[in-house]
Amino acid sequence: MKSLFAADIRDNQLVDSMFLVAAKTHGVTKTGNSYLTIKLIDKSGEIEARVWERADELGRGFDKNDFVRVRGQGTLYQGKMQLRVQEVVRVDETKVAAEDFLPKSVYDPESMLEELQSILRTMKNPHLLALAEACFADDELMRLLRQAPGAKTIHHPYLSGLLEHSLSLMKLIVKVVENYKGIDVDLLLMGGFLHDIGKVYEFTFDRAVDYTDAGQLLGHLVMEVEMVTRKIETIPEFPAELALLLKHLLVSHHGAYEFGSPKLPQTVEAVILHSLDDLDGKIQAIQNLPEKEPGSKWTAFHRAYGRSFYRNKMEAQ
Amino acid sequence: MKSLFAADIRDNQLVDSMFLVAAKTHGVTKTGNSYLTIKLIDKSGEIEARVWERADELGRGFDKNDFVRVRGQGTLYQGKMQLRVQEVVRVDETKVAAEDFLPKSVYDPESMLEELQSILRTMKNPHLLALAEACFADDELMRLLRQAPGAKTIHHPYLSGLLEHSLSLMKLIVKVVENYKGIDVDLLLMGGFLHDIGKVYEFTFDRAVDYTDAGQLLGHLVMEVEMVTRKIETIPEFPAELALLLKHLLVSHHGAYEFGSPKLPQTVEAVILHSLDDLDGKIQAIQNLPEKEPGSKWTAFHRAYGRSFYRNKMEAQ
Amino acid sequence: MKSLFAADIRDNQLVDSMFLVAAKTHGVTKTGNSYLTIKLIDKSGEIEARVWERADELGRGFDKNDFVRVRGQGTLYQGKMQLRVQEVVRVDETKVAAEDFLPKSVYDPESMLEELQSILRTMKNPHLLALAEACFADDELMRLLRQAPGAKTIHHPYLSGLLEHSLSLMKLIVKVVENYKGIDVDLLLMGGFLHDIGKVYEFTFDRAVDYTDAGQLLGHLVMEVEMVTRKIETIPEFPAELALLLKHLLVSHHGAYEFGSPKLPQTVEAVILHSLDDLDGKIQAIQNLPEKEPGSKWTAFHRAYGRSFYRNKMEAQ
Amino acid sequence: MKSLFAADIRDNQLVDSMFLVAAKTHGVTKTGNSYLTIKLIDKSGEIEARVWERADELGRGFDKNDFVRVRGQGTLYQGKMQLRVQEVVRVDETKVAAEDFLPKSVYDPESMLEELQSILRTMKNPHLLALAEACFADDELMRLLRQAPGAKTIHHPYLSGLLEHSLSLMKLIVKVVENYKGIDVDLLLMGGFLHDIGKVYEFTFDRAVDYTDAGQLLGHLVMEVEMVTRKIETIPEFPAELALLLKHLLVSHHGAYEFGSPKLPQTVEAVILHSLDDLDGKIQAIQNLPEKEPGSKWTAFHRAYGRSFYRNKMEAQ
Amino acid sequence: MKSLFAADIRDNQLVDSMFLVAAKTHGVTKTGNSYLTIKLIDKSGEIEARVWERADELGRGFDKNDFVRVRGQGTLYQGKMQLRVQEVVRVDETKVAAEDFLPKSVYDPESMLEELQSILRTMKNPHLLALAEACFADDELMRLLRQAPGAKTIHHPYLSGLLEHSLSLMKLIVKVVENYKGIDVDLLLMGGFLHDIGKVYEFTFDRAVDYTDAGQLLGHLVMEVEMVTRKIETIPEFPAELALLLKHLLVSHHGAYEFGSPKLPQTVEAVILHSLDDLDGKIQAIQNLPEKEPGSKWTAFHRAYGRSFYRNKMEAQ
Amino acid sequence: MKSLFAADIRDNQLVDSMFLVAAKTHGVTKTGNSYLTIKLIDKSGEIEARVWERADELGRGFDKNDFVRVRGQGTLYQGKMQLRVQEVVRVDETKVAAEDFLPKSVYDPESMLEELQSILRTMKNPHLLALAEACFADDELMRLLRQAPGAKTIHHPYLSGLLEHSLSLMKLIVKVVENYKGIDVDLLLMGGFLHDIGKVYEFTFDRAVDYTDAGQLLGHLVMEVEMVTRKIETIPEFPAELALLLKHLLVSHHGAYEFGSPKLPQTVEAVILHSLDDLDGKIQAIQNLPEKEPGSKWTAFHRAYGRSFYRNKMEAQ
Repeated sequence: MKSLFAADIRDNQLVDSMFLVAAKTHGVTKTGNSYLTIKLIDKSGEIEARVWERADELGRGFDKNDFVRVRGQGTLYQGKMQLRVQEVVRVDETKVAAEDFLPKSVYDPESMLEELQSILRTMKNPHLLALAEACFADDELMRLLRQAPGAKTIHHPYLSGLLEHSLSLMKLIVKVVENYKGIDVDLLLMGGFLHDIGKVYEFTFDRAVDYTDAGQLLGHLVMEVEMVTRKIETIPEFPAELALLLKHLLVSHHGAYEFGSPKLPQTVEAVILHSLDDLDGKIQAIQNLPEKEPGSKWTAFHRAYGRSFYRNKMEAQ
Repeated sequence: MKSLFAADIRDNQLVDSMFLVAAKTHGVTKTGNSYLTIKLIDKSGEIEARVWERADELGRGFDKNDFVRVRGQGTLYQGKMQLRVQEVVRVDETKVAAEDFLPKSVYDPESMLEELQSILRTMKNPHLLALAEACFADDELMRLLRQAPGAKTIHHPYLSGLLEHSLSLMKLIVKVVENYKGIDVDLLLMGGFLHDIGKVYEFTFDRAVDYTDAGQLLGHLVMEVEMVTRKIETIPEFPAELALLLKHLLVSHHGAYEFGSPKLPQTVEAVILHSLDDLDGKIQAIQNLPEKEPGSKWTAFHRAYGRSFYRNKMEAQ
Repeated sequence: MKSLFAADIRDNQLVDSMFLVAAKTHGVTKTGNSYLTIKLIDKSGEIEARVWERADELGRGFDKNDFVRVRGQGTLYQGKMQLRVQEVVRVDETKVAAEDFLPKSVYDPESMLEELQSILRTMKNPHLLALAEACFADDELMRLLRQAPGAKTIHHPYLSGLLEHSLSLMKLIVKVVENYKGIDVDLLLMGGFLHDIGKVYEFTFDRAVDYTDAGQLLGHLVMEVEMVTRKIETIPEFPAELALLLKHLLVSHHGAYEFGSPKLPQTVEAVILHSLDDLDGKIQAIQNLPEKEPGSKWTAFHRAYGRSFYRNKMEAQ
Repeated sequence: MKSLFAADIRDNQLVDSMFLVAAKTHGVTKTGNSYLTIKLIDKSGEIEARVWERADELGRGFDKNDFVRVRGQGTLYQGKMQLRVQEVVRVDETKVAAEDFLPKSVYDPESMLEELQSILRTMKNPHLLALAEACFADDELMRLLRQAPGAKTIHHPYLSGLLEHSLSLMKLIVKVVENYKGIDVDLLLMGGFLHDIGKVYEFTFDRAVDYTDAGQLLGHLVMEVEMVTRKIETIPEFPAELALLLKHLLVSHHGAYEFGSPKLPQTVEAVILHSLDDLDGKIQAIQNLPEKEPGSKWTAFHRAYGRSFYRNKMEAQ
Repeated sequence: MKSLFAADIRDNQLVDSMFLVAAKTHGVTKTGNSYLTIKLIDKSGEIEARVWERADELGRGFDKNDFVRVRGQGTLYQGKMQLRVQEVVRVDETKVAAEDFLPKSVYDPESMLEELQSILRTMKNPHLLALAEACFADDELMRLLRQAPGAKTIHHPYLSGLLEHSLSLMKLIVKVVENYKGIDVDLLLMGGFLHDIGKVYEFTFDRAVDYTDAGQLLGHLVMEVEMVTRKIETIPEFPAELALLLKHLLVSHHGAYEFGSPKLPQTVEAVILHSLDDLDGKIQAIQNLPEKEPGSKWTAFHRAYGRSFYRNKMEAQ
Repeated sequence: MKSLFAADIRDNQLVDSMFLVAAKTHGVTKTGNSYLTIKLIDKSGEIEARVWERADELGRGFDKNDFVRVRGQGTLYQGKMQLRVQEVVRVDETKVAAEDFLPKSVYDPESMLEELQSILRTMKNPHLLALAEACFADDELMRLLRQAPGAKTIHHPYLSGLLEHSLSLMKLIVKVVENYKGIDVDLLLMGGFLHDIGKVYEFTFDRAVDYTDAGQLLGHLVMEVEMVTRKIETIPEFPAELALLLKHLLVSHHGAYEFGSPKLPQTVEAVILHSLDDLDGKIQAIQNLPEKEPGSKWTAFHRAYGRSFYRNKMEAQ
């Protein structure tokens, strides 16, 4: 773990810490001297850094997207904190703890994965159970699932976010189906488990969360249908209709064409999966919004939802 | 209870039963004789009836929207069942069982009301508890709540439908909030109880479900805000902010401007109420859709949702 | 080939021909006699038929979706032609020529397939060429491609319609790319060939064109991605990026989310494919529209395009 | 009245005037000295101020949203006027003239209110007349109506704006109804008077115009229905249908769901009220738009209307 | 004027009157006899007629869109009035009064035209006055303006409807501008006069109202710009900017792209013209809607506005 | 041709070149001295310039929109290049080469115009041929067509852009019609030639591309209909229907109401013209997009299309 994060640097403070280089630009001063402007990031945020001495020499030693060790001093400039750099050298990725550079879920991924597996192992449908076990047995998939974020957006791109959301959704499904008859709970649970599983390939998340080319050009819905198809082929006598119903949950879970679902939900389970997926995401997003200003009952404006939210402070009583 | 319903009349069967007159038209035959065409309805559906003899005399005795006792005989005409009438006389509304003319919930309204009250009596918030008790003490309101339908549309206009939906939603709320922290469950339960309560005045439902003028011109959202405001005025020291949060649940529960909510949901409770209200309605609607054709896995087309639904027959296993 | 089609039957004409049973209903006359109402269809349209004699006996011998041989006589009833049936017996599907029951393209499927293959064999990209040959070598796929219709809608559901449209689109691509530099013509040609290939499984078209369950729940975009993935797996060293670009053409070819594309076109080839696919469909649809009324310069109203079209009669000069 | 406004401060000018503190931030200079950045506003606009000396001591004496008396000197910095502060002390609200901090209508509120009352007193409907008098007799309501702004937006938030708009709309109604028969002019006039009256509680406007929590969560439509309902309860024998028609004018006056009306206009009066309300607002907004650049015939771009407007200079001739 | 209209024909009544043939179809009875089915219309509505005798002979004598003199007898058939025809012969158009076949305005076109002219002659702008006089001097244009309908739709296609609407709009403009300063009233009045003038060529209205090909392919906005351009060319020294502003009123008067205006209103006059044009049309449409059913306070459903309207019966007091 | 462009000025470089003045503002320094801030542009972009000495004297000699000769020195200020001006004097427009101030097509306008004419001279329709020749004979029109840009937007406002696009579209039309029967190619070619011809009057493009008042208030669709109408009037016996069909191509070529077409395409030629016009524009726009960042396969984000594009680098092989 890093000893000092970007957001904690103070005026005049001496700094010696690791960062990820998000941008690197060369400049020339009026007097003709070369200098570097670097954007350094870690999970706490970002800081602008300037190299005024040995800029050409130091600049040759690293590039954008490298991890670097930086020594220098904090400096307030026009009301913003800057870093005046004395030394900057590239360090190998293996020397770096990923958690220092990407925020992560407050929950332990191992515990979440265990809980997710124990819920799925309660399923009575032998075919879906076999499919779940085939997924659990795929070490690479499980490794990625422990780590993958839930989304790219600046606001919730945290490691294990995909797992946290999938587990929360599955627990919600268990409760909601108690209120109704005639719902195929096993199918719904597998939908909760797999509906976003394609995100493990839609994103890169070793340094910062970003879309892969395949993620951008095909999307996680299409990618996870291919993934599930392959897993099902390894299971003898998996019923064709069951495979169809499961894949339908995946392609329709965004609930509407304009959100990228090529098909509308056309089973009662698909309708429920979309609705609860949407609700679980919204509750987390609203509860994690910062305040509009300190002490305000109103949150900051949420772009995607097009509004601020009022916090009912009585709720904590 | 009626002995014979419109949908059960067979060719040549003798009929002596009560109906509601939905339409009455005079006609004249080629040969100059007067006759009556009447549309008779009860909760099973409708049947066309013809009065060929004493049409003028019998026609003077009743009007559209009257209950009538009809004697006659079933007759197949061009593939459709008709009723050839011998006698038709107006009967007083008090002689008629409303349940014969409007379908009703399969659940007993008394039991549902008791369960709804027992859930609300678990609330810890003394102000909301007092408000709930004030509603329970309003005999007229409780009488209407036992009867009111959930909607007007032809497909689900059944007595006690409002109560059935509100109760189901409240039970769903109880389950869903267990999955999250920091939700004001008492506020949400009152929202579940009151979100559609204005429908008791939005509709008439003594003979058939229809909009009142006030229902059409103001709508149940605005009407129930007025109703709740009056009830709150009877409760000493009801906190102003709590009243505001409760009324916000009512005005925003349709979730979007285009569905008639003048405000978007702006609290986490308002977001949850809208989402679960919508989901509970959809599950009931989908599960009650008739089949496309006998034996089909597909349901009839649902106009409002713009699709048919596929029935997962495995779900019943 | 049938000797007499539904649309050609005249008043009093004696009929002895094959039809597909689209609906069968039992009725009872006022006098208590059983009769059958049958809807008979072939590629020319439909005719209503009535069995007044031996209805129960004849009715037991066939069902909806069966092919039948019918003997009877044409009868004008209330301005519409009916068929009064003397004899109706089920015939085996193998005795029937599919072309009698589904309209088909005016072009020969063999010739169209040959032309399509010869265009694709001009490709220089060895990987795409290998993929094309793998498709040509799949006898089942080629058999379905020769037959599959282009769409289900009542207006153009004709056999070999898919092949006709794909070929026309590929020929259009060849011409259009001549006008621009830097377009990957081989990729575009494969996109033209494969963009609708999933329709061979999206529809059934042995008796009438209808959606399969998989077609309804997944759609041809998702199904053809799976199909192409499997074919690519059989070709050694197929470049991953090329596979990605090809699959992107498939998932984005409807051009917009609201038309069921989960991704927007994001390469210049995807933009061109969507645009020309749309244009080719529109030209055919407009040119095949019937006249509003005999002699009119205006066509019948086209529902999907929301307008009638004016025919420029000078164009033929 | 203030002697010097923010917009009038010049380079090097000595300043001694009252302002409202819109923001206050502490900073630290490179050399470790504390300083304050303050945003000061009055009705003319805003100016940034800096306290470089005794910053901690002076900063303790006032807070955001306080009125302050400031002494200092104007200073041009990077092309923008700044205020370099020597002294800043909190002053009590009672020492301050509200008109100095909020722009106000060019018309006198007393005269406007008198004209509004004299128009309403021409009504022939005794019930509506009684309702109007009940409103006039409510001193608190009249006090707020004299002051309330017409909107919050930065561009026209001026005191008495609500009164100015309501009066203009009522005068327009009087003229328009002369052109048609069968319009209930008294109902329309009351609609013009009351359609925005809820804004007196939707906004705070003692220091700057902002939404109240109730304004944000319920909106002026719902709030004014409650207000009117209470007033009507004080009037004996007010006809129920008349109350319904009046409240319908209020809930529907935004004219469309997407503008926050829970009901569409469903009477001819509601259609007229919405149309003229919209037109009166637009004419004022367009005529008050600044020029795109000095001398241009085009106005600045109007965000809400999505366009600039061309000024017909001939119109003044 | 006709002695008997289609809507007034009674059972067994003898008929001898003129009609317009809207449709003509030949049929053959079961017994092999030829007969004719004709749809006859006049301004009161339509009636179906049958020719059972001498059908071939009589049928040769007239065609669709001809005026005919018909002799026969009214007959009630399945609850609908029919006409059993003995004699039907084509009559020349010159023998027919157009007003019998198209409904017309309740106002006299001569008086309306005079009032319109006297309003325009109050204009102070000499160029616009000259343009108005140039239009008045165009006898063909004035002849068409006296007759042209305001729209094609089934509900208000009445002769002189264009003149009635234009005059009402101009009178409304005169009143509205009194409420504001700085509006160019002469420009607005000419906009009111000319905004729909292209409809005289957009429609045919000699027998029934229908679109011309040019009306369908170009529309009245574009056609009237051409017409006004030609008229302006005849007036010496007409200012270019004034011509531009006037034409802008025409192209923008539908107010939005989706209603066929290629430009949004970009002057205050264009905003006012669109708003009042829309309001005048709506008031007339609402006031002319039939009742939902006899005695109801609700009107029939208005398709374009998507609602029924509630009639405030107190308004007449 | 200029010796030095704005984008090429380096730190400390001496400058003596011509520019267009896009903005001019007077300022006063803290010490009371007058200075000028000027925005200078040429086709390479813009540079900010400051006049610190003799500001009042020099400032009187030129104005916004003047061409000026500037002498001074490049200066890096806060990372951006500025120009410190010693001398600035107005120069006459005639001394300036327009190509230095507006980017232009890479193709020679003379050659493009010749090719366009030779294509149109292949037309068989004598009326359209005569219309084309009438346009070619209009020297003023041809002069403007050689120069006019294709659009105003900052990204592709280059001289001769209109000609380049029209020619490319006509060549595309020639190829596409080979794939279909029954298309009126001559009509389509004239549509390709004239569909944007109104842009020669919609824009000014002598110094920078901007809308004229008429362009803003009427738009090129309406303006080119007027232009074509006048040209047609000079040709004897031009068929009315042909004129109508040609003008329909112009008014409908944006393809949808929301893009400013007052009529939808209603002929097969209008559908084709809109589709190919749109495609030709998109291909050019995509191919000219800059990279997201150096070396990236993704382009910069395209605002109007709402996405970035992926470049298939294999296409160049």
